[in-house]
Amino acid sequence: MQVKPNFPFVLHGGDYNPEQWPIETWDEDVRLMQRAGWNIATLPVFGWGNLQLGENEWNFTWLDQVIEKLHSGGIRLCLATGTAATPPWIDQAYPDILRTDSKGVKRRHGGRHTCCPHSPNFARLSTGLATKMAERYGSHPALLLWHISNEYGETCYCNLCAEAFRSWLKVRYGTLAELNFRWNMAFWGQTYTDWSQIEPPVENAQRNFQGLLIDYDRFQSESLHNQCLAEMEVLRRITPQIPITTNFMGTFKPLDYHKWAPDLDIISWDSYPARNATPSQIALRHSLMRGLKDGQPWMLMEQTPSQQNWQSYNSLKRPGVMRLWSYQAMAHGADAVMYFQWRRSPGAQEMLHGAVVEHAGREDARVFKEVAALGAELARIEKVTLGGRVKTDVAFLFDWENWWAVEYSSGPSVDLKYIKVMETLYSALFDLGIVADVVSPNSDLSGYRLIVAPALKMVKPGVAESIKAAVQGGASFITTFFSGITDATDRAFTNGYPGPLSDLLGIWVEESDALAQDDRNGLHFSDQSESQCSLLCDRIQLQGAEAIAHYTKDFYAGEPAITVFPYGEGAAFYLGTLPDRAGLKSVFRSAIRRSGVTMPHGISVPKDVEITERVSELGSLLYILNHNSNEVEILLPARNYRSVIDDAVVNHTLTLPAYGVAILTTEV
Amino acid sequence: MQVKPNFPFVLHGGDYNPEQWPIETWDEDVRLMQRAGWNIATLPVFGWGNLQLGENEWNFTWLDQVIEKLHSGGIRLCLATGTAATPPWIDQAYPDILRTDSKGVKRRHGGRHTCCPHSPNFARLSTGLATKMAERYGSHPALLLWHISNEYGETCYCNLCAEAFRSWLKVRYGTLAELNFRWNMAFWGQTYTDWSQIEPPVENAQRNFQGLLIDYDRFQSESLHNQCLAEMEVLRRITPQIPITTNFMGTFKPLDYHKWAPDLDIISWDSYPARNATPSQIALRHSLMRGLKDGQPWMLMEQTPSQQNWQSYNSLKRPGVMRLWSYQAMAHGADAVMYFQWRRSPGAQEMLHGAVVEHAGREDARVFKEVAALGAELARIEKVTLGGRVKTDVAFLFDWENWWAVEYSSGPSVDLKYIKVMETLYSALFDLGIVADVVSPNSDLSGYRLIVAPALKMVKPGVAESIKAAVQGGASFITTFFSGITDATDRAFTNGYPGPLSDLLGIWVEESDALAQDDRNGLHFSDQSESQCSLLCDRIQLQGAEAIAHYTKDFYAGEPAITVFPYGEGAAFYLGTLPDRAGLKSVFRSAIRRSGVTMPHGISVPKDVEITERVSELGSLLYILNHNSNEVEILLPARNYRSVIDDAVVNHTLTLPAYGVAILTTEV
Amino acid sequence: MQVKPNFPFVLHGGDYNPEQWPIETWDEDVRLMQRAGWNIATLPVFGWGNLQLGENEWNFTWLDQVIEKLHSGGIRLCLATGTAATPPWIDQAYPDILRTDSKGVKRRHGGRHTCCPHSPNFARLSTGLATKMAERYGSHPALLLWHISNEYGETCYCNLCAEAFRSWLKVRYGTLAELNFRWNMAFWGQTYTDWSQIEPPVENAQRNFQGLLIDYDRFQSESLHNQCLAEMEVLRRITPQIPITTNFMGTFKPLDYHKWAPDLDIISWDSYPARNATPSQIALRHSLMRGLKDGQPWMLMEQTPSQQNWQSYNSLKRPGVMRLWSYQAMAHGADAVMYFQWRRSPGAQEMLHGAVVEHAGREDARVFKEVAALGAELARIEKVTLGGRVKTDVAFLFDWENWWAVEYSSGPSVDLKYIKVMETLYSALFDLGIVADVVSPNSDLSGYRLIVAPALKMVKPGVAESIKAAVQGGASFITTFFSGITDATDRAFTNGYPGPLSDLLGIWVEESDALAQDDRNGLHFSDQSESQCSLLCDRIQLQGAEAIAHYTKDFYAGEPAITVFPYGEGAAFYLGTLPDRAGLKSVFRSAIRRSGVTMPHGISVPKDVEITERVSELGSLLYILNHNSNEVEILLPARNYRSVIDDAVVNHTLTLPAYGVAILTTEV
Repeated sequence: MQVKPNFPFVLHGGDYNPEQWPIETWDEDVRLMQRAGWNIATLPVFGWGNLQLGENEWNFTWLDQVIEKLHSGGIRLCLATGTAATPPWIDQAYPDILRTDSKGVKRRHGGRHTCCPHSPNFARLSTGLATKMAERYGSHPALLLWHISNEYGETCYCNLCAEAFRSWLKVRYGTLAELNFRWNMAFWGQTYTDWSQIEPPVENAQRNFQGLLIDYDRFQSESLHNQCLAEMEVLRRITPQIPITTNFMGTFKPLDYHKWAPDLDIISWDSYPARNATPSQIALRHSLMRGLKDGQPWMLMEQTPSQQNWQSYNSLKRPGVMRLWSYQAMAHGADAVMYFQWRRSPGAQEMLHGAVVEHAGREDARVFKEVAALGAELARIEKVTLGGRVKTDVAFLFDWENWWAVEYSSGPSVDLKYIKVMETLYSALFDLGIVADVVSPNSDLSGYRLIVAPALKMVKPGVAESIKAAVQGGASFITTFFSGITDATDRAFTNGYPGPLSDLLGIWVEESDALAQDDRNGLHFSDQSESQCSLLCDRIQLQGAEAIAHYTKDFYAGEPAITVFPYGEGAAFYLGTLPDRAGLKSVFRSAIRRSGVTMPHGISVPKDVEITERVSELGSLLYILNHNSNEVEILLPARNYRSVIDDAVVNHTLTLPAYGVAILTTEV
Repeated sequence: MQVKPNFPFVLHGGDYNPEQWPIETWDEDVRLMQRAGWNIATLPVFGWGNLQLGENEWNFTWLDQVIEKLHSGGIRLCLATGTAATPPWIDQAYPDILRTDSKGVKRRHGGRHTCCPHSPNFARLSTGLATKMAERYGSHPALLLWHISNEYGETCYCNLCAEAFRSWLKVRYGTLAELNFRWNMAFWGQTYTDWSQIEPPVENAQRNFQGLLIDYDRFQSESLHNQCLAEMEVLRRITPQIPITTNFMGTFKPLDYHKWAPDLDIISWDSYPARNATPSQIALRHSLMRGLKDGQPWMLMEQTPSQQNWQSYNSLKRPGVMRLWSYQAMAHGADAVMYFQWRRSPGAQEMLHGAVVEHAGREDARVFKEVAALGAELARIEKVTLGGRVKTDVAFLFDWENWWAVEYSSGPSVDLKYIKVMETLYSALFDLGIVADVVSPNSDLSGYRLIVAPALKMVKPGVAESIKAAVQGGASFITTFFSGITDATDRAFTNGYPGPLSDLLGIWVEESDALAQDDRNGLHFSDQSESQCSLLCDRIQLQGAEAIAHYTKDFYAGEPAITVFPYGEGAAFYLGTLPDRAGLKSVFRSAIRRSGVTMPHGISVPKDVEITERVSELGSLLYILNHNSNEVEILLPARNYRSVIDDAVVNHTLTLPAYGVAILTTEV
Repeated sequence: MQVKPNFPFVLHGGDYNPEQWPIETWDEDVRLMQRAGWNIATLPVFGWGNLQLGENEWNFTWLDQVIEKLHSGGIRLCLATGTAATPPWIDQAYPDILRTDSKGVKRRHGGRHTCCPHSPNFARLSTGLATKMAERYGSHPALLLWHISNEYGETCYCNLCAEAFRSWLKVRYGTLAELNFRWNMAFWGQTYTDWSQIEPPVENAQRNFQGLLIDYDRFQSESLHNQCLAEMEVLRRITPQIPITTNFMGTFKPLDYHKWAPDLDIISWDSYPARNATPSQIALRHSLMRGLKDGQPWMLMEQTPSQQNWQSYNSLKRPGVMRLWSYQAMAHGADAVMYFQWRRSPGAQEMLHGAVVEHAGREDARVFKEVAALGAELARIEKVTLGGRVKTDVAFLFDWENWWAVEYSSGPSVDLKYIKVMETLYSALFDLGIVADVVSPNSDLSGYRLIVAPALKMVKPGVAESIKAAVQGGASFITTFFSGITDATDRAFTNGYPGPLSDLLGIWVEESDALAQDDRNGLHFSDQSESQCSLLCDRIQLQGAEAIAHYTKDFYAGEPAITVFPYGEGAAFYLGTLPDRAGLKSVFRSAIRRSGVTMPHGISVPKDVEITERVSELGSLLYILNHNSNEVEILLPARNYRSVIDDAVVNHTLTLPAYGVAILTTEV
């Protein structure tokens, strides 16, 4: 039974690792947190090694002290179960805990993400610590939510996993004959005659069967999920009223977050855009995380106040960018703006990671001042912003299993990367000022006017039906090359590509030509415009569909490249190739026009200005974000808006400085 | 005792993997094969796992059925022994079968090429399967030839191999003292005092002695060869009248095909040119494979009908290119045009490999139609084309042991790659319209007018003598930098480079300067023309030879770069550097002029038009291939030709469309 | 107790490996050595395998013979202990000798650098061989010095090392609590509770703690040092009067030569500049090696006469370059010019390494003639050149531990490489005609007028104090970005960067922006000149210092980029970024002007002409080296010089041909 989080304020705080500092620092920490407008601290994420010193040896004294200081200072708690990294003595005592890597080599102690998800000793010890934490602090008045472990990930290939994998496969397939058929083990005569012959796909073993590889990923994602659930059960039993999260990592390949999300009370994630990330790349990930729990508000659990030590170049976030990106998260549904971490570590690997407080500990530093200013600002506006839901009628379909299927594929092109295709299409829509949800193909699609499914190679049962129903009802659907190739076990459809989507799209894709990295074909659109295209060029046979663009070069010059097929009340578009940005926008505009999708309040925005709308019972808020390093002007509809941040009335024109943000309400 | 293959038609067919498909598909397969003009199917290449289910458990039912269906449909059989990949139960039961990789790590089950060539269990089981196959199908009327295993390769470094290697070395060297001397083990004081100290050269062991490395490659090539011979003995015993092949892979480094070829009845190979392969690169490999058995007709065992899933970019073969490349194989001596594979796999790694029948199974697909058209065409002309031998008086010397010696060498340049040098020289000759055999330095050279030996670092006993005899008799000889450096054990010649070729060439190479990738020197030819050169610049001391080109730059400006020395009735050319294409062609022209080499029928061809002549007892055929994507015209001598394919008379001018082919005979 | 080497001549000779050649060659070798002007031969560096054939089986006959031949020919001996590579039988009998690599994999026999520094069997056997060598040849009249092992290096991660490491740590830290604090093991909860939990940092173990990583490097450097000391003790006991060296490798990362140097009697090193090395890169390394023993003359133990087989491109040393680089070593304090090796190996990995005698064995080869000419020249001038010390009042601080600390750091930039920064600053000074010593930060700095400390991240106890004392006394000090970040255990200073150097520099570095590879900011100098800068841009808060350059771009445009602070009689400069060459030279000029540094004899040199001064009791010699491939003219002060090499008087103008060298004395 889940808990509905109902935070009293926009969370502003982050990771706090007091155990790395002497006790003298803790009072100063609380004083500075207050100055920084922090209302929450996350700890002890990596506390295990300093809490449990032996099988029956515990030391909670330091944590008790820290928690009291925070509580006295008015700082609430995001309490970690502390199981994110095992202490040396545990790995030494219970070597079954250490996972085996993809080369088949067992790890030694050290680092994070080192435990096998099927280790019984890890299960016993981690739930043991979670129990201690819940029993000791579960009724503490400062406790706001639980944070299980940290950034789950990494795959294990040990014998414990092998055994569990075989059991998992027996349940999934029932018989070896069925498994042999689904994975096509007759290929290279690799047919199994006994379950015991199945091994995890380590690098010098069986890597030639996508069915096996994808299932191993499913199994490992589920295994870590079960590891998380084991701690969750402890917490739910002892503190049924406290909401629970674990921090996700956006487009993180190994974990199928769609499977994890239903068990969490609130989604949280760690956003670390690269130095040169585009606004739409960040927006895509926020939208994906928001879509995990049906649009429910979520937490920005970690962002760096300034630098990331593990990037190639630790560039500074420019003045205003941390604030801008914080509001971008809120614009996409976040009710929490949190940082990693409070104070720069005095040593070890993250010594140079950005932090609110630098080594010098000074509050007159630029970064500290920006954090403090944002804290104060959020405190002023949080009553209005809390709880709204992002309004959109566009859905992008995103599927982890499809990601694996696309990228385990041998062919058609080394440049075909699922996230890259997703980003390219998403950013074209972003340019048009449209916000989209990014959701599972298995989610309820009935509310959407436009559904986009890039490179949907794997079409699982029910998905084609659900898309068709939406299009039947008037929605537009857009899909691309390398869609409708295989079923859920990655066996090819033998009724012609794009398989179960063929009748919806009114086409047959006979073959697909891969273009080398710098190669281009041309597109001639029916409105006479011209574009370039790249990556793949499908040779499409029309079976009812109409071509809206044709190739201009090579032996398939003049053949259909992009098609549309009216279906029910709606229409289905097929991109047989990857158009350039102008071409993509042209197709999106057609689909938008047909399906009646509109921009928030109909406001048209300049390049790299983002606009979203969040709606709550208090009304509607427009978030307008200027991602440009120069001032912009936005023309508003002819009604009065109030700017929430500076409490000013805005008419006709909104002027935003470089990296500026406005939150507008019509409640003037 | 070998069998002389005498096929009744040009083989047109290929790999067929019915075990990946339900029984319902098999009848449709035969129907479509007939439509495609197939007359042969290769199977069961990877059948082991579905034929032998346990030590004494066999299932031939499905194969019996398939074979009967093919036979009824008029399709002949290229029967594989089926031993190309071991089934899971075998690897599980007999782990000695799994080979150890170059890091010293034992493989786990999975994939192909996984067995140790010295595993007694593999020997027992593989010959067991071969015996079953031969006994069951050896007298089947549809059986045309045997296909042993598949694409042999991969090296093993296990203890079984180590033991066998020591025995092999004892035979080769007799005494440890001799081995220590040949490998120069005194270097770094690594002198062996007992045979047991010799280990396979895994990556973290002894890799500093080229003598050891080359011998290990010789030993492994011979070990796999013996593995092949073991199956061959079974087949020869049971079906002495059926010819035998195993499919080679062109310029495949690990196997010394010159050693393998004598045991096969017919050479077959798998040609998978890269997307951007040049015609001469393909021609070089065909010529190498043809040269393995003294020009005897051979089989194109595999080519893709369209795409290769394992290339970076799975580009489509353009319309006409599959036909063109099929005829190119025939132009170089093939009497078989075969494909991999019949139907696209429904799953697993080769799901996207090109096939005659795509997943949709439609016969109106472009690729199917091109295959069927070629099948019909071949059936029409095969009586005329069968059995001819390619006519040429030019030989390129190619030696696997030299390849290893060149590339194990530490210095003189990371850019010095044997195949690259070979291709560069071969393509210059190709441009001049000349066809060459590519043969072992140990083959009979007496019939050739021009002998080219690129980068012949290792000069084995007898080779210098045989070349000198040919030149004495009037042939031209061309060799290059990095020739005549070492003997068969890779010990340096101490009488000055190019060692035993020095007196033939009339020079001493004092030292050799390596040029970085983008560096160039200039060449000034005695005819006053200028070229550029790269890679290496030998400093040559003339000892009788005459310089035909001098360097134009650096401290050796004005010194000889390319030389010629009259020797007996002939002449010997030395390229002290790698000239650009114009420079190379200039040298080749000189050599051709001196030795009287001519183009087939004296026809001069435009760029990227290839011409070869095959001669049989029926007469002579000219193959003229237009590798260009545009139409070309070729001027013919003043006599009448008949075009075999379209049965038309051709006078004066032959017009070939893009990718077009003509086969001309003077039998009008 | 050390020996002061007092060689009677400039050593001219090198590595001699007679065991790779038949006895017939040895007489010819001696004859040719005499022709080449050799007066010393180094052997038997890799003799172990041919000297000790079993536990108690020895064969010194061949070495006796060779030594007698050399001695009779007047060639002196640099006798190696011969322990540089273990013979096969030893590795076979005592596998504990083979080291474990950074992946945790134990090596197999083969190659060099394969022994664990804590192997008891290696200790016993290597000192056993050293004892035999010393006893047999220690009183031989030809013996000039000892050469222990060869090019020490490589790290071991085996269990013997693990155990020794724990003991070493106990001594270093006393308590686990102290170690946990110093390494900040509370990070990720990795606190040790028992010494036995500490493991060597193999790649799949604990790599997240720089404290651990740096200490492991310290430990391994010290371990190999102890291995060397074990042989040294044997030699000192038996031949107390013979000086001892081992050959170093310049900027070789694993070994802290500052710790090794005090035990050696004379420094020697192997100089192998890359094809495109700049003169200042070579000079930097000579200066570093010279600085190891306080400027005492040293030996160029190895250089190639021409090619290096292990470079990507084995380019020839241009005529004159070998001579130029030999004199460059002497210009920087060398009293020995030696080669690797005498004769090209007849086989194995170094078959193509440059040698005085090529495979052909001819004395009319260019390389041989250049060596012989140099030998004759040196013999003529050696009485004058021997024993001088290089005169300079500039010091560059170089620290191996700091190197490790800079490069184990996660952040701020992948482009931040210690040697690269060092080279960039050193070459700017080189351009100004200034010679510098390169010394440890812990050395006596009191004599220097200018002290440069690039990227001095780790400031160890006493260093700040010693620099301050020098500046107090009038010296200039220059340091850069990424200085003063951590203490000797790599814990961050928490009083603000640059830590203990802050008050000396009068600044606080608030934050540091990393620029991507091609990014640049601009610098505006107070003299109105402009430059570009890259790599890092510190944001500097002035605390007394004055800005001498400001940034011109980005949000910190106008902020200080380069500062100076008067301190005592001197001044301290801070480079918050990496200026381009013009900018660097501008800063150096300021510092030089303030501190009164001058060029040798005040002579101003053209680009890539190098000038140094060596002073002995015989007087002062100016070495003037033209690194250009064209002739140059140098204006001399108005006094008479004598050119030592050609014994000519030089007035006003010195003309040097391409790659030319002059040694001038005022003793006319």
